[in-house]
Amino acid sequence: MPDTDLQHLIRLLSRLPGLGPRSGRRLALHLIKKREQLLLPLLEALRATAENVRTCGVCGNLDTRDPCSICADPRRDDHILCVVEDVADLWALERSGAFRGTYHILGGVLSALDGITPEDLHIERLLRRCSGGGVAEVILAMNATVDGQTTAHYVASRLQALGQNIRVTGLAHGVPMGGELDYLDEGTLTTALASRGVL
Amino acid sequence: MPDTDLQHLIRLLSRLPGLGPRSGRRLALHLIKKREQLLLPLLEALRATAENVRTCGVCGNLDTRDPCSICADPRRDDHILCVVEDVADLWALERSGAFRGTYHILGGVLSALDGITPEDLHIERLLRRCSGGGVAEVILAMNATVDGQTTAHYVASRLQALGQNIRVTGLAHGVPMGGELDYLDEGTLTTALASRGVL
Repeated sequence: MPDTDLQHLIRLLSRLPGLGPRSGRRLALHLIKKREQLLLPLLEALRATAENVRTCGVCGNLDTRDPCSICADPRRDDHILCVVEDVADLWALERSGAFRGTYHILGGVLSALDGITPEDLHIERLLRRCSGGGVAEVILAMNATVDGQTTAHYVASRLQALGQNIRVTGLAHGVPMGGELDYLDEGTLTTALASRGVL
Repeated sequence: MPDTDLQHLIRLLSRLPGLGPRSGRRLALHLIKKREQLLLPLLEALRATAENVRTCGVCGNLDTRDPCSICADPRRDDHILCVVEDVADLWALERSGAFRGTYHILGGVLSALDGITPEDLHIERLLRRCSGGGVAEVILAMNATVDGQTTAHYVASRLQALGQNIRVTGLAHGVPMGGELDYLDEGTLTTALASRGVL
């Protein structure tokens, strides 16, 4: 049996998402064997993250700065807000490089099953950002899941109730680039057909 | 894009065995969200491991003590050595609770493909441990792979050449407990048949 310090490390590693006891043990051994290349750098990176990374008070992004580097960037268009569920979704959109506006992170989606109500999400903060008159468009970029789309509809109705004449839009649905029709579900194909465009 | 501290953490996490860029990002976000329950305890566990865990000078086990708690335990029988490839194999045997002797960790197996020669393994140290006359039996518990069995044969011949009259044994091969014949390979079934016992 590994000794107590190691056992504790393995227990913590096993609790990480996607890992279990076996991969936790494997990871711990790997870290000890790669002490200089991996264990010490990881230790330092975790320390730096724990010390420096905070949540942006404007959009909810994670950054060493507050407001975050996106909110503080004068080249970003703050008249367009893109509302996403999570920081991971912001990162995904940033990797595409296709969006030059700013973001607002909800911190989840409404879910009756998990007991997530509008008060649990950063919806009020979004409404405050939008009530000043400076926002021309809000893109609701929630995941194309039932909960994501329910949340999008709820947020859209709250935004329209502001009476600020804000354009509320959503991401297009259809066949993903590189996607093969044979592998797509009926829902996606139905949407892709219904939203077909002239070539 | 995540900021530099986070990016660095994600890059390190992505390099861990079994993880990639996506799971690295997922892990980093999870750690930040569970700061008190996971990030800080993990940081502390890694620090304690980096500071305290060392390799046992006798058997090669990882422990906060040297000699390790197995080698130092007077209730363990040091006349029987179990030779394993790796610390993970020692842990597996300890979980079974079936072995009350001591261990010797080779640190790998001979492999022409990977250029691992006898000098790369802790074979000389094993021979020194066995040449004092205090060892009655050496169990070669290498994995049942080609490289593992090649290594076992090599170590067995070196032990026999010591002329110490040491009993050199190997783990039994056969049908694993709970194993279904239909799912077993021909090699295992052939061995299980050849080594069949009277009930």
